[in-house]
Amino acid sequence: MTETVQINPTPAYRRIATEEAFAPPQMLKMYLDLYESRKLDDPGFDSLWGFYLTSMAPRPAAIREKLADLDAIRIADMDAAGIDHQIISLTSPGVQVFDRETAVSLAQDSNDMLHDAITRHPTRFSGLCAIAPQAPDLAAQELERCVKLGFKGIINNSHTHGEYLSDKKFWPIFEAAEAMDMPIYLHPYTPPKNMIGPMLEAGLDGAIFGFGVETGMHLLRIITSGAFDRFPKLRIIVGHMGEALPYWMYRLDYMHAAGVRAGRYECMKPLQKKVSEYLRENVYITNSGMAWEPAIKFAQQVIGEDRIMYAMDYPYQYTPSEVADLDNMDMSDELKRKFYQGVAEHVFKLTV
Amino acid sequence: MTETVQINPTPAYRRIATEEAFAPPQMLKMYLDLYESRKLDDPGFDSLWGFYLTSMAPRPAAIREKLADLDAIRIADMDAAGIDHQIISLTSPGVQVFDRETAVSLAQDSNDMLHDAITRHPTRFSGLCAIAPQAPDLAAQELERCVKLGFKGIINNSHTHGEYLSDKKFWPIFEAAEAMDMPIYLHPYTPPKNMIGPMLEAGLDGAIFGFGVETGMHLLRIITSGAFDRFPKLRIIVGHMGEALPYWMYRLDYMHAAGVRAGRYECMKPLQKKVSEYLRENVYITNSGMAWEPAIKFAQQVIGEDRIMYAMDYPYQYTPSEVADLDNMDMSDELKRKFYQGVAEHVFKLTV
Repeated sequence: MTETVQINPTPAYRRIATEEAFAPPQMLKMYLDLYESRKLDDPGFDSLWGFYLTSMAPRPAAIREKLADLDAIRIADMDAAGIDHQIISLTSPGVQVFDRETAVSLAQDSNDMLHDAITRHPTRFSGLCAIAPQAPDLAAQELERCVKLGFKGIINNSHTHGEYLSDKKFWPIFEAAEAMDMPIYLHPYTPPKNMIGPMLEAGLDGAIFGFGVETGMHLLRIITSGAFDRFPKLRIIVGHMGEALPYWMYRLDYMHAAGVRAGRYECMKPLQKKVSEYLRENVYITNSGMAWEPAIKFAQQVIGEDRIMYAMDYPYQYTPSEVADLDNMDMSDELKRKFYQGVAEHVFKLTV
Repeated sequence: MTETVQINPTPAYRRIATEEAFAPPQMLKMYLDLYESRKLDDPGFDSLWGFYLTSMAPRPAAIREKLADLDAIRIADMDAAGIDHQIISLTSPGVQVFDRETAVSLAQDSNDMLHDAITRHPTRFSGLCAIAPQAPDLAAQELERCVKLGFKGIINNSHTHGEYLSDKKFWPIFEAAEAMDMPIYLHPYTPPKNMIGPMLEAGLDGAIFGFGVETGMHLLRIITSGAFDRFPKLRIIVGHMGEALPYWMYRLDYMHAAGVRAGRYECMKPLQKKVSEYLRENVYITNSGMAWEPAIKFAQQVIGEDRIMYAMDYPYQYTPSEVADLDNMDMSDELKRKFYQGVAEHVFKLTV
């Protein structure tokens, strides 16, 4: 996991990394209990956290240590990789695998822990607020508390017990997020048990493929549900270069229009705009996990330069050489500054 | 479905469309029986063919008529859209939803029907051979028969009763395809019942999203199974601009290497090459359903100009204006000639 790589120490921009994870040690212990008891009935959880909690291989072992740190280890890693500032969020699936009461309480605790770390390192860290979708009304209350504490947005780790934010019962969260102008980072989780089958069977359920399928589908469900018509100022952030939806954009528009015109699905109603228009007007994208110039430029071209921002995906993809690669993209300094700094400052209203 | 659009009648290339579907009337009748009996236990089939067989909306009604025609209607549509030549294949899921005996027999019948049409219109049509993966050894025999009849490749409509070609029991098909140098077109089908859940619930199981997930995963399963190490000359074609795998390429390489290094999955073994190298060396891509310059250029850039070719997806996406749009891409005539003609002539060894 340690690389020796020369990162430009004085670039023409601040590097703000926007999809960076932490885990309270208490939560990792609860995950271990959940994994060992096998009582969740969520094969994706068992695959994901069974691996990260028990593997002795160097990468998962390093990730366990770094996830739990909000001080010296993290800041040394940031310094070594040239990262000025992290937008930190509770790692996936956060509180979303627990029962309602546990989730509500753990969200508060983890927000408090993150807030304390931000108070210790105000120039290096900002935070996204964890909420319990299991309790949408209380989620709005916790969001209000976190806004007062200076949080910059909301983290949601895809499905909650197989349910999606496209379901209207979760819309109090959208309503609160829009009212407080807090963007929601829609982060991956493994697909639920009624989708993971053939992916898990082939070892493709995690970050290699299943994460993207799950999260791209979740965003597409939100779009096609009409949520952005109901909450036109709602902003959603997705990582991994848009979870492939920018690449699918032409087909999404064509087939959504065809399906609506034919009345194929009761649940698929006409929308005020094309699918691609919501992607361009309500969605922001980070390059977490995709330190790859062709895909970054493609998304800048088809979604917009003011909507694509940097993320490292620390500690899951702590690969400092990727920063050097991105520094060397064939791209104007002005655009690189947007990518590394400007878009994030705007989206999260950063003041430090 | 009918558009008045001016297509350049004398372009600097022949337009060869490579993912064009037909359905024997007999098979559509069998699909209707299967749908009405609900005995398949495949919710994707019921969603897909329930719609196309019973909807009275203009698009599905036109598709029903055009699928069954291999003469005047099809050729008039080709002429109106400036298509010189179609590579025709049995529509999805072809014979793959039936029992073994039915599938073997129906594959032969539909190949004979397609062969007769090609004999009637040799300059306008070529064909891909339908096989029954349910009977891998007989599939190799049917392929041999079809090669003698002049077929140009094999059509496979993704999963067969929830099973994938990554399973070694199907590898006699790969062995025969490699030995006879016949490319396999890996065409979409709806995801199987243990994957379709949250997509079907939201009306996203078909061409809008589920097709791409299913087919991209299928190709990724084939790659990660080591099939291309065992059959290094095997060639697979995928449509829809590569079912998003070109866009995911960086992450596929990174996470496959990380998973193998950590020994996370028993089934995920080291490969001789990176995932991206198989995509660049064993895979060809068509733009079916994606008449969109940015994605075409992206794939040409990251996969290679000699691997990207044209498809209309007739009759599902019979949209002549798309041909005019593609004619007008900001691309050299030489590269457009590769895209519309040269790559297809090479892949399918066309002589007419």
